[in-house]
Amino acid sequence: MSSENLLESSCEACREDAPRVTQEEINELKPQIPAWQIQTIDGIDRLICAFSFDSYLAGLDFVSKVANLAEEEDHHPEITLEWGKVTISWWSHKIKGLHRNDFIAAAKTDSLFAQ
Amino acid sequence: MSSENLLESSCEACREDAPRVTQEEINELKPQIPAWQIQTIDGIDRLICAFSFDSYLAGLDFVSKVANLAEEEDHHPEITLEWGKVTISWWSHKIKGLHRNDFIAAAKTDSLFAQ
Repeated sequence: MSSENLLESSCEACREDAPRVTQEEINELKPQIPAWQIQTIDGIDRLICAFSFDSYLAGLDFVSKVANLAEEEDHHPEITLEWGKVTISWWSHKIKGLHRNDFIAAAKTDSLFAQ
Repeated sequence: MSSENLLESSCEACREDAPRVTQEEINELKPQIPAWQIQTIDGIDRLICAFSFDSYLAGLDFVSKVANLAEEEDHHPEITLEWGKVTISWWSHKIKGLHRNDFIAAAKTDSLFAQ
């Protein structure tokens, strides 16, 4: 498989029989999103990253940007807003795990934060 | 103590030596916010309630309303946005537990949802 730039990709429609990412794909894609951690919660692998802000409303603005990205990609993360921090979790509900889509969405989340 | 209407109150500045609500106060105030549960997480009591929505962006709109309420009251909850659901947790960080402010904020959250 050739290396790909996640930011140049879009999420594809995910079906219940879609393949989860393999360890080989994780090894290829994860270096593009170094701040993200793979965590297993309730038996389901997720990509999780916390972003820091100096106010609650700055965090809210980021929540709004990520939620609008989610609508564009038709792929919806769990987002938690606290004072000074927004935590984003991407995983693919239909396959109960990580799909290539989640790595694309994480890379685009990083890009929104950098703006 | 006379009964009070939570919606007619505002959060007061909370100090580290402010009193947590007593069981007597909980018995008085909790019936005004029947959908909320008191949950203990990491040893800290919180008021938690989940609200349902039929789209992600409808949930985002509610997140925005609650976050702006939080700024007005200078009291900031943890808010989690998922597809179809927004979960709000109110507690008072400075006293590591529940203050009267949290019951006021929960009642105002219910009011925003009802709008």
